[in-house]
Amino acid sequence: MASRQPVAIVFDTFGTVVDWRSSLIAELTAFGRQRDINADWTALVDAWRASYHPSMDRVRKGEQPWTTLDALHRASLDKLVAEFGIKGLTEADLQHINRGWHRLNPWPDSVAGLTRLKRKFIIGPLSNGNVSLLLNMAKHAGIPWDMIFGSDLFRHFKPDPETYLGVAKLLDVEPGQVMMAAAHNNDLANARKVGLMTGFFARPGEYGPHQKRDFAADQQWDVVAKDIEDLATQLGA
Amino acid sequence: MASRQPVAIVFDTFGTVVDWRSSLIAELTAFGRQRDINADWTALVDAWRASYHPSMDRVRKGEQPWTTLDALHRASLDKLVAEFGIKGLTEADLQHINRGWHRLNPWPDSVAGLTRLKRKFIIGPLSNGNVSLLLNMAKHAGIPWDMIFGSDLFRHFKPDPETYLGVAKLLDVEPGQVMMAAAHNNDLANARKVGLMTGFFARPGEYGPHQKRDFAADQQWDVVAKDIEDLATQLGA
Repeated sequence: MASRQPVAIVFDTFGTVVDWRSSLIAELTAFGRQRDINADWTALVDAWRASYHPSMDRVRKGEQPWTTLDALHRASLDKLVAEFGIKGLTEADLQHINRGWHRLNPWPDSVAGLTRLKRKFIIGPLSNGNVSLLLNMAKHAGIPWDMIFGSDLFRHFKPDPETYLGVAKLLDVEPGQVMMAAAHNNDLANARKVGLMTGFFARPGEYGPHQKRDFAADQQWDVVAKDIEDLATQLGA
Repeated sequence: MASRQPVAIVFDTFGTVVDWRSSLIAELTAFGRQRDINADWTALVDAWRASYHPSMDRVRKGEQPWTTLDALHRASLDKLVAEFGIKGLTEADLQHINRGWHRLNPWPDSVAGLTRLKRKFIIGPLSNGNVSLLLNMAKHAGIPWDMIFGSDLFRHFKPDPETYLGVAKLLDVEPGQVMMAAAHNNDLANARKVGLMTGFFARPGEYGPHQKRDFAADQQWDVVAKDIEDLATQLGA
């Protein structure tokens, strides 16, 4: 069992807890078939995710006022639908597709592992998603969060320190009593810089054939696990 | 079953979901006995609660900058300990006693009723308590909230409209899709003023022998129930 124990564990969400790529590809492929709308949905999903960091960075750098991830996703989607030449989508369709990010499915170990961790620790997502997105996802996927740390609580996206430190402040604990858990080394590096504990497990399938990094821990994180079930085991939960 | 259905139900907490008075009296009486510190703990608890609204009103009126309920509770406690002439309390004791508000016990129907409601609705506390207080209380009492709407998220106390409307904003729904549930008519009146649905059930034992109001609904609230289990029944959950 790890020697130091956190009070709370907050999880990156997209890729770490839920499998955004397979979920969205499956949903959009089914939608296209049902509505007889032809498109390379897999390429659309990959391009959509590729627009994620650049869109948030515009907000982080102050080039754009605070905007929720839902709204950033929608702006990117509108652009990509035009670029891909996809025809026949109504406004209701676009809203439905955009809310696909609220209906992502968990990795096989996520719910079981989080259920175990919840008995011993406070658990929540610390994600760039907004509260409504993360809450709807939790209801959809059966994820038993204690609290939802959406980016709209802080009006900052990770890796801004206001997000990591904002969790400690809301929980009234020291930053070192909070563990950031993620399948992304850079998220953990930024959490560690401001004093959080860190827990890593790889999700080598997150980007499908396009995965280029995060196959393994690249620092000595406080815990390096195989998945969330193993994280629970290593933390004695 | 009620004809209109909310998306989310948010609950007043102190008195509505948890029995603050009996919980604190029991805990402080046991503490006093164990530590051999003599005091009229029942009177202290009643006086402590009596300082609740005046202390928040100073913040609401701008006479004092934003202060969490934990800090307001502590300031009131320090004053009352002096007034009551209670001797022998260390700083650790005072911190422990103040955290008694994090360890309140639910009314007998609360956890069962909320567990049923959670299957159909988003549920959360909308309380003047801060997130850490409400979250620790949920862990202590086994309350299965989906999200914790602590007053520190809004930096406003009820009945400021920022609290009721803040919930709708974070959930990305219309105010009319949120139901405020409380054992206090005035909380519901303020929620209704800004467009929320309302659900009432009485907690006639909240103030023990000092209860003066809220024995029954004083307006036609959207739902008037016997308790949280009955609220679940009336909402088809």
